[in-house]
Amino acid sequence: MDRIKIIDVHEDVLANNDRAAEALRARLHDAGTLLINLMSSPGSGKTTLLNATLDAVADRLSIGIMEADVDSDVDAYSVQRHGARAVQLHTGGMCHLDAAMCEQGLRELGTQGLDAVFIENVGNLICPAEFDTGAARKVMILSTPEGHDKPLKYPLMFEVSDVVIVSKMDVAEYFDFSLEELERNVRMRNPQVRIMPLSAKTGEGMQQWIDWLLGEVAAWKA
Amino acid sequence: MDRIKIIDVHEDVLANNDRAAEALRARLHDAGTLLINLMSSPGSGKTTLLNATLDAVADRLSIGIMEADVDSDVDAYSVQRHGARAVQLHTGGMCHLDAAMCEQGLRELGTQGLDAVFIENVGNLICPAEFDTGAARKVMILSTPEGHDKPLKYPLMFEVSDVVIVSKMDVAEYFDFSLEELERNVRMRNPQVRIMPLSAKTGEGMQQWIDWLLGEVAAWKA
Repeated sequence: MDRIKIIDVHEDVLANNDRAAEALRARLHDAGTLLINLMSSPGSGKTTLLNATLDAVADRLSIGIMEADVDSDVDAYSVQRHGARAVQLHTGGMCHLDAAMCEQGLRELGTQGLDAVFIENVGNLICPAEFDTGAARKVMILSTPEGHDKPLKYPLMFEVSDVVIVSKMDVAEYFDFSLEELERNVRMRNPQVRIMPLSAKTGEGMQQWIDWLLGEVAAWKA
Repeated sequence: MDRIKIIDVHEDVLANNDRAAEALRARLHDAGTLLINLMSSPGSGKTTLLNATLDAVADRLSIGIMEADVDSDVDAYSVQRHGARAVQLHTGGMCHLDAAMCEQGLRELGTQGLDAVFIENVGNLICPAEFDTGAARKVMILSTPEGHDKPLKYPLMFEVSDVVIVSKMDVAEYFDFSLEELERNVRMRNPQVRIMPLSAKTGEGMQQWIDWLLGEVAAWKA
């Protein structure tokens, strides 16, 4: 009997995507625009963090934002009011962005004159972690109501991230949430990652995030 | 203010597993076992609700639980301690369960003597909504910290569900959360759906959920 050929479609799709992402990243490096992929569960505070960030760096950075959603455009209007150049990407049911979608979005947004562009990825702790969008940095948010056990259950997202923002620290006390346990669980997955507990609502912990962003933008242009 | 540009980047990658799901549902009907697909974001309280449910119906129903996770088995041990027959399904990176995975899990669990089986699906508001697992009922949880705008952003999950449980009502006051606005947003997507605000922690609102479950199990066996 002939040996059946096994085709790994998933891996091939990922390999093609990786090549496109690398090319996009190189072009953005030449242009001096830092692309940051912001990922989290639904409702963990991506838009609130972006709005507070826009307010904090208004005099220092020009920022673009690509809002990726299955549907709706409420977030794009929100960040535009806070001074960002914004486009809304509808994924048509897809649970993540890939490099091609991201490139299409950047063409529509126009990167000229922008120091940094944030992708506000679809709210999802699983699929977005698997796709390189061409971003230079990956930042994830875990909100305190979600619980400190999440690195055990959604390992890849914590493994691929450069920064883990722990949001909604102002309400941590109302939940069974331990920052120490979270840090231990995160470090098991990713010993190098930066962990930044903060509240975009009260401003607590925001400075280290803003300092990180300014430093990364400067290093990307250097 | 500039009008936000909306770009459609639709890609249809959905597999059709409807036939397998229909056959599984018919077999479970003959066996008198009600299969319920429980879906939500990560950290919205699926396991806490299941544990409180198991305690409440301990004398009346025999319940099985299939825990679906990308990784870890903490939830399976938790529900087992509360009296459920439990198995842990690892999806190997997959962001949802389909009918074939579900059937495999049920074979391992063994449905004999069980009145109801819950699938605790992977924490994800997008992909699980697209796949018929063979369950007879779909129940989703939205926790108050996630915000009342989620039906606008993750429409399909709200459209396919029979029940929307609004969890963590005991902490709603600490968030920008309006039950009235949530209900309005949910009804836009799904006028027929049952909406049940509750707190599995304090017990508030649990009775209507338990009554619904007992009624559905009785109707499925009739």
